[in-house]
Parts: sequence; structure tokens; C-alpha cells
Amino acid sequence: MIATYDDQNIFAKVLRGEIPSYKVYENEYTYAFLDIMPRSPGHTLVIPKGFVRGILDISASDFMEVARTTRTIAVAAVKAFDAGGVIIQQFSEPASGQVVLHMHMHVMPMTEGIDLLPAQTRREYPTVLAQNAAKLIAALKDEPA
Amino acid sequence: MIATYDDQNIFAKVLRGEIPSYKVYENEYTYAFLDIMPRSPGHTLVIPKGFVRGILDISASDFMEVARTTRTIAVAAVKAFDAGGVIIQQFSEPASGQVVLHMHMHVMPMTEGIDLLPAQTRREYPTVLAQNAAKLIAALKDEPA
Repeated sequence: MIATYDDQNIFAKVLRGEIPSYKVYENEYTYAFLDIMPRSPGHTLVIPKGFVRGILDISASDFMEVARTTRTIAVAAVKAFDAGGVIIQQFSEPASGQVVLHMHMHVMPMTEGIDLLPAQTRREYPTVLAQNAAKLIAALKDEPA
Repeated sequence: MIATYDDQNIFAKVLRGEIPSYKVYENEYTYAFLDIMPRSPGHTLVIPKGFVRGILDISASDFMEVARTTRTIAVAAVKAFDAGGVIIQQFSEPASGQVVLHMHMHVMPMTEGIDLLPAQTRREYPTVLAQNAAKLIAALKDEPA
């Protein structure tokens, strides 16, 4: 039995517009924005608009929508950041290392020979984040969703 | 531009039944089986039946089916292995660390305070794998797909 959803987590606040985010994409079911402590250039988070903690409490159809957006972002991010590949990752519940308890899928473009930064190593400069959001938004315009 | 699919990879051989696997679930679009070098007890791989390398060449609808099965497995695996959470992870292309070039989603049940084993550390005993497959199959019977 997992704990109940707490709507004061930071991603719930992002969804409600109570705190700002580097938004790159949004549709009826999902919202995507840059991780401000990226583990690789272009590291993006895809979250469902429904208020769920993770894969253990999300519905099948909502998770499939998260997957749809994740793929769209992954394809565009590899182009936008001239990457050779991509890692997607999702943690559910504190036992897995999940910190923010609103479901989020990590999309991390990867370059041959360069490892991910350890999680939560360094906050990226706002100018770089703004530039990267613009690059990803431009690449998304070229992709069918 | 990613490379083309090579149908001699080991997961293609699993799908064709040319090499054995600890199957736990199968539907029209996907196949799920235990990783024989588990990073946590119950570590399962979900693969599409379509021959694709990863998230960069799979169709949206096929990836959504991988996601549907991944969620089904995750929920059942947490119960079967009495886990507190779960990590899902997917690597696309060698630049990301992908080794077998047929798309696979890792589902790794997690227990508080116990880290994942590093990848490819140790081959699990066949008796343990058989036992774990049976546990997961039993838990899947209790879950709506």
C-alpha cells in the first residue's frame, strides 16, 4: 500500500503555475519541462497532469500518455542536443530514490563517452536553461507528436 | 540517424524461441522475462515484439504498449517481491550504454536502503530465477492487465 498523494510537492506547484518552470511541451494529459539540475544537457522531465505519485498509482491509460510524450521529447532532444542516444528513467516511491512525489519520467540525451552527472550535482545557469528550452522547442516543432 | 536493426541480437532470438528465457508475461505487442543478471530481485525486461532498437525508432503506439506492460509488471513485481518501490529504465543506442540492441525496459523492484547492483555484476542461479518467475506470474494473475 503506497502513501497518498500530497499536493504540496513542487511539481504540483509547477502544474498549478505557482512556481515557474522551463516548459518545453504540453498537451491534454502531460507537461514537460527542463530539469534545473540536469544530469546531461537537455535533461527533461515529463509529468502527468493527473496527481499521482508514480507507476504504482497511475492508471494504464495515463501512463501510456506519459510514454507517448516521453518518446516525442526523446526523439526531439536527441536532435536538439546532437546526442548519440538517450536514457529514460522513472523512480517510484522513496525506496527507489524518488524525491519529488509526483510521477516524473527523466529524459536524458547521452553523448558517447560522457557519463551522466550524479543526480542533484549542480544547478544549471538560467541563461543555459533558457537556451536549451528554446532549442528543444524548436526541435519539437519539426516532430509529429 | 540511428543504425538499422540487426535481427541476430539475443532478444530477437528470445522472441523467436531460439534461446530460452524466464518468461513472465506476454501479449500481442510485448514480451516480459527475467533479467538473468538481475540488479535487484525480480528485475524484469519488457520488450516489444516489433523489431526496433529503442525509443528513437519505435512507433508511438508500440511504445505505449511497452509502457502498458511495464506498468502491469511493476505493480505485480512490487507485490511479488515485497518491495517498497520500483525503478524503470530504458537505454537507447550505445552512447547511452545500451548493450543489446532490441528495445528493452528494465523494471527493478527496490527495497528501502538497498541499492541496485551495478549492471552485469553476477548471473543469478537458475533455481532462484525459476522461483522468482513463478512468484511474479502468481502476482500477475491477481492484477488486471
